[in-house]
Amino acid sequence: MKRSCAAVLALLVGVTAFSQESPSPTMASVLAAADESDWRRVEQRRLLYLVLDRGVVVFELAPSFAPKHVANIERLADRGYWDGLAIVRSQDNYVVQWGDPNAGTPAARPLGDVQSLAPEFFAEASGGFRSIGSTDSYAPQVGFAGGFPAASDGDRSWLTHCYGMLGVGRGTEPDSGSGAQLYVVTGHAPRHLDRNVTLVGRVVHGIERLSSLPRGTGPLGFYEGTDEHVPIRRIRLGSQLPPEERLPLERLRTDTPTFAELVEARRFRREDWFIEPAGSIGVCNVPLPVRQAAE
Amino acid sequence: MKRSCAAVLALLVGVTAFSQESPSPTMASVLAAADESDWRRVEQRRLLYLVLDRGVVVFELAPSFAPKHVANIERLADRGYWDGLAIVRSQDNYVVQWGDPNAGTPAARPLGDVQSLAPEFFAEASGGFRSIGSTDSYAPQVGFAGGFPAASDGDRSWLTHCYGMLGVGRGTEPDSGSGAQLYVVTGHAPRHLDRNVTLVGRVVHGIERLSSLPRGTGPLGFYEGTDEHVPIRRIRLGSQLPPEERLPLERLRTDTPTFAELVEARRFRREDWFIEPAGSIGVCNVPLPVRQAAE
Repeated sequence: MKRSCAAVLALLVGVTAFSQESPSPTMASVLAAADESDWRRVEQRRLLYLVLDRGVVVFELAPSFAPKHVANIERLADRGYWDGLAIVRSQDNYVVQWGDPNAGTPAARPLGDVQSLAPEFFAEASGGFRSIGSTDSYAPQVGFAGGFPAASDGDRSWLTHCYGMLGVGRGTEPDSGSGAQLYVVTGHAPRHLDRNVTLVGRVVHGIERLSSLPRGTGPLGFYEGTDEHVPIRRIRLGSQLPPEERLPLERLRTDTPTFAELVEARRFRREDWFIEPAGSIGVCNVPLPVRQAAE
Repeated sequence: MKRSCAAVLALLVGVTAFSQESPSPTMASVLAAADESDWRRVEQRRLLYLVLDRGVVVFELAPSFAPKHVANIERLADRGYWDGLAIVRSQDNYVVQWGDPNAGTPAARPLGDVQSLAPEFFAEASGGFRSIGSTDSYAPQVGFAGGFPAASDGDRSWLTHCYGMLGVGRGTEPDSGSGAQLYVVTGHAPRHLDRNVTLVGRVVHGIERLSSLPRGTGPLGFYEGTDEHVPIRRIRLGSQLPPEERLPLERLRTDTPTFAELVEARRFRREDWFIEPAGSIGVCNVPLPVRQAAE
């Protein structure tokens, strides 16, 4: 089958046909030229591991944007709150959500000292926001802050609902979310949720284990019966896990000249396949590379 | 479980809590007030049915943008070209693609009189383009044309790679696509592909049957072995199908005051759940409602 696979590859969409002669940077050439200081090892205490029968999904938490919500999530993970609970919703082109299927009923698992919180939308000061200079449908400026996609109005910065972002489900009242119900964006960025729901991190490993789940057939993609729920084996911080279960993840820093070059290489796609490079890029179209470090 | 499901619903993200007292339009109220003339029945000869073991996916074709490519696709469907071929690629947050796994090899199924074509990116004249007045990362103007998301530079209009759009795979040469390899956008809109690949339609039914497929583990999301390929039972135009297999699909017209109201209702989300309506909307965030007509 080798020959036929090669033939299919030749017909693919968006093939990265990087010409060796070309001096124009591509993402591949920018990453090849990056050095160790362009990468940042994510501390295990900032990584949240969601363990499913189908494998593990790992999130980097964003305490610089949502410190109280992240503290709640750390407390819940620490006590094994989610273990044996379930993914209850998979809405196509929108979100996957999990928590206690009995939430809000007398059968709900107690949250103990974990309280509902007022929203945390904005970083203190600028939060390290750096604009990528792109026009955006939703915000005056867009870019990145501490490795996360973000927006700014010049004074305040906030995280944006790009693919893979992790948020805190809430009810109609703005202060009704605690972190016990979480969702991940698994579709085209629902940016109308920006500054309406608290974002607390993003997926850095294994998102396909969430995005390929069967869609729920109930309203808003909720699974209709408990037999459809996807059981959660456990959710833990990396710092709680035995060393052999930890993933040594590094992500490309977003505050370096290398990252700026990567953004430019994607704004003007130089790979041979492209006829007309866009010359522009949406904040949710910028790849955020993650790799596993050698231990 | 009814009670627990209701409890979960109360905690969901983006719940449509439409207040009966509120005079502000929501998408629900706009659709409720729409009349028959706001909907357009899609002719069966413009619908392409992709039949998989897991169910059917239906596309509306866009001959006003890509007449020659659509003609190729019609010929291929008419002769059953894809029957028994396969979905060969599912790349997370990008595309699902199908065609002949042996394309480009001597074992390839013959294309007969179906030739590769020069790209068809632009509609004749404006193609009926209507701007929604939104800022966009990729184009001077964005809006809709004949039910499809589109962009314009004032003179020419072209289709945009929003979620669910159907495109023609090609190789490095711009004129190497015929329509025999097709892909559907199943992730955040890869708008850098606009004006680089010919778009020929969009999904109007059953996209979850593609978007929830397991991701391919090969480069670019290609399935690594033939055992992973997802077999295609058949692909046909609706006009070729026996009446009992046709779906009587109607889509909301995009050239009416009702549609303009829908866009505004989504630009300013008035549902009680929202704290801060965005006041803006991306072209790929506008819902394009489809319903099944009573026969």
